[in-house]
Amino acid sequence: MSAVLSDQGAFVAWRQARQDAVEAALSEWVSADAPAGLGDAMRYAVLDGGKRLRPLLVLAASEAVAGSAEAAMRAACAVELIHAYSLVHDDMPCMDNDVLRRGKPTVHVRYGEAQALLAGDALQALAFELLVPDDGSVGPAMAAQLCRQMARAAGANGMAGGQAVDLASVGHVLDQPALEAMHRKKTGALLQASVLMGAATGQADRDVLVHLARYGASLGLAFQVVDDVLDVTADSATLGKTAGKDAAADKPTFVSLLGLEAAQAYADSVIDEAHQALDHSGLPDAGILHALADWVGRRAY
Amino acid sequence: MSAVLSDQGAFVAWRQARQDAVEAALSEWVSADAPAGLGDAMRYAVLDGGKRLRPLLVLAASEAVAGSAEAAMRAACAVELIHAYSLVHDDMPCMDNDVLRRGKPTVHVRYGEAQALLAGDALQALAFELLVPDDGSVGPAMAAQLCRQMARAAGANGMAGGQAVDLASVGHVLDQPALEAMHRKKTGALLQASVLMGAATGQADRDVLVHLARYGASLGLAFQVVDDVLDVTADSATLGKTAGKDAAADKPTFVSLLGLEAAQAYADSVIDEAHQALDHSGLPDAGILHALADWVGRRAY
Repeated sequence: MSAVLSDQGAFVAWRQARQDAVEAALSEWVSADAPAGLGDAMRYAVLDGGKRLRPLLVLAASEAVAGSAEAAMRAACAVELIHAYSLVHDDMPCMDNDVLRRGKPTVHVRYGEAQALLAGDALQALAFELLVPDDGSVGPAMAAQLCRQMARAAGANGMAGGQAVDLASVGHVLDQPALEAMHRKKTGALLQASVLMGAATGQADRDVLVHLARYGASLGLAFQVVDDVLDVTADSATLGKTAGKDAAADKPTFVSLLGLEAAQAYADSVIDEAHQALDHSGLPDAGILHALADWVGRRAY
Repeated sequence: MSAVLSDQGAFVAWRQARQDAVEAALSEWVSADAPAGLGDAMRYAVLDGGKRLRPLLVLAASEAVAGSAEAAMRAACAVELIHAYSLVHDDMPCMDNDVLRRGKPTVHVRYGEAQALLAGDALQALAFELLVPDDGSVGPAMAAQLCRQMARAAGANGMAGGQAVDLASVGHVLDQPALEAMHRKKTGALLQASVLMGAATGQADRDVLVHLARYGASLGLAFQVVDDVLDVTADSATLGKTAGKDAAADKPTFVSLLGLEAAQAYADSVIDEAHQALDHSGLPDAGILHALADWVGRRAY
C-alpha cells in the first residue's frame, strides 16, 4: 500500500472528492429535460444516493494507470447508470417488489411502474451515449472498447443473465460454486468491468490487466458475501433498503450456505486475494485500489 | 426510381433476400446460451417475426452509399434488437398489457413478467454489443458513431421519451403538432436512425445526409399514420397484434384527429415527401429506398 493511502484520512478525502465529482457529473448528464416526467424519474433513480462504488473503481483504476480523466468520468457515470437502471427494474413488483431503496421510496412507488420501466430503459441507453461523446473528448478506439466492456458486463452473460439465474434459484439449494457463478454474473461482472474500464482509459500492459481483472473479480465476490452478511446483521435504516429480504424470499446466500461467522471470514480471505492481485500487478501506485478493497470488506451498509 | 426497382418483383426479391439474411444473422447473434432460460426468451422476442423494416432501411441506405456490408448487417440487427426490446417492455401489464404480438403470445405471457423485463434489458445491451465487435469488422470510428446514433434514438429524447409522452397523453386531446412530436420520438427517431446508421457505414456527403434525414423523418411519420389507419381498418389476425386497441385505450391517433380518409391521404402526402427527399439527395441509385417508402405507405399489416 502506498504511503499516502496508508493514511485512512487521505483515502476518505479522496473518496469524498470523487463522490462529489461523480454526483456533479451525473447531475449534469442526467438531464431533467426528458419529456413527460421521464427526466425527473431518471434523476430520482440516480442522484443523491449510493456509495458510488463502481464509479470509484473506474476512477481509481484510471488514476492507477494515469488514464484520461475525462474518459474516466464518463465511464464512471456510465457504469453507475447501468447499476441504477438495474436497481429500478429489480425493485419492480414483477421482480423483487421492493418499496425502499437508498432510504427513499423506490422509483415505481414514486412514479408508477410504467415510468419506472421507461426510466430504467432510458438510463441504459444514456449509459452508452455517455461513452461516445461527439466532442472528441474520448477517442473512438477507446470509446468502442468501453462500450464493448460495458455491454458484455450488463448483458445476457453478465448482469442480466445473473439476475435470471437469481430468479430461477429461489427456493432451490445452490452449492457454493453455483452461488458464486450466479453472483459473478449478477454483480461481479459490472464491478470487474468498472476496474477494467478504468484501466482502458489509459495504457496498461496486458499483464497489468490480468491482475486488475483478478482484483476486480475478488472485490466483486467479496462485495456480495458482505452484502449477504449485512442482510442478516444490519437493519433497514442503516442499509437504506429492506433488510432480511433474502431470507424472507428463500434465496440462497453465503450466510445460509456457510453460516454467519464463516461467511465473514470468507469475505476477509477474498479481500486478501484482491490485495495480492494488486501486489502482483506491478502498478507503481495502487494505494487507492487497496483502500477500496478494504472499504468493501469493512463496509457497514 | 432506378430502372431495376421500377419492377416490383425485383424489390420483392431484394426484400426477401435481405429479410432472410437478417433472420440468419439475428439467429446467430441472439444466442440461446444465456442462462436460466433468458436466451430462449430473447430469441422468442426477436426471431421469426415482423417486417424487419428497420433492418431493411439500414441495409438499403448502406447499399445506396456503397457502405460496409458487414457493419450494415450489425447495425441492421442492432436496431431490430432495440425495436424488439421496446415491444417486449411495451406489451407488459404495467404498460399496454397486450397478450398478442406478431400472432403469438407476448413474451411476458409466455415466459413471465420478470423474464420479459430481463430479456428486454439484455436485448438492449446486446444491441450495443453488436456494434462494437472485437474482430476488426467495424472500425472504431464507425462503431462509435453507430453507438452514438442508436443511443440517442433509443433514449430519453428518442424512443423511451416518446413512450413516456404517449403514456401521459392517454385520455388527453393532442393537436396534430403534439401528436407528431410524440411519434417523432416514439417511432420516428429509431426509423430515422436506421437510415442514418446505414449511411454511416459508408462515406456520404453532408448534403446527402441532410436529405436522408428528411427521408427518414417522412417515412417515420408515414409509418405511424398508416399504423393508426390499420388499427381501425385491419383485424387482429392480419395485424398479428390486437386491433382497435388505440381507440379502446382512448389514445389520440391521426384517425381520431383527422378522420379515416384524411389520415390515409395524409400518409400518401408524407410518402411523397420521402420520395422528394430522395430525389434531391443526388444518390445515384436510391431505387430500393424509394420502394421501401412505397412499401410503408401501402402496407396492409
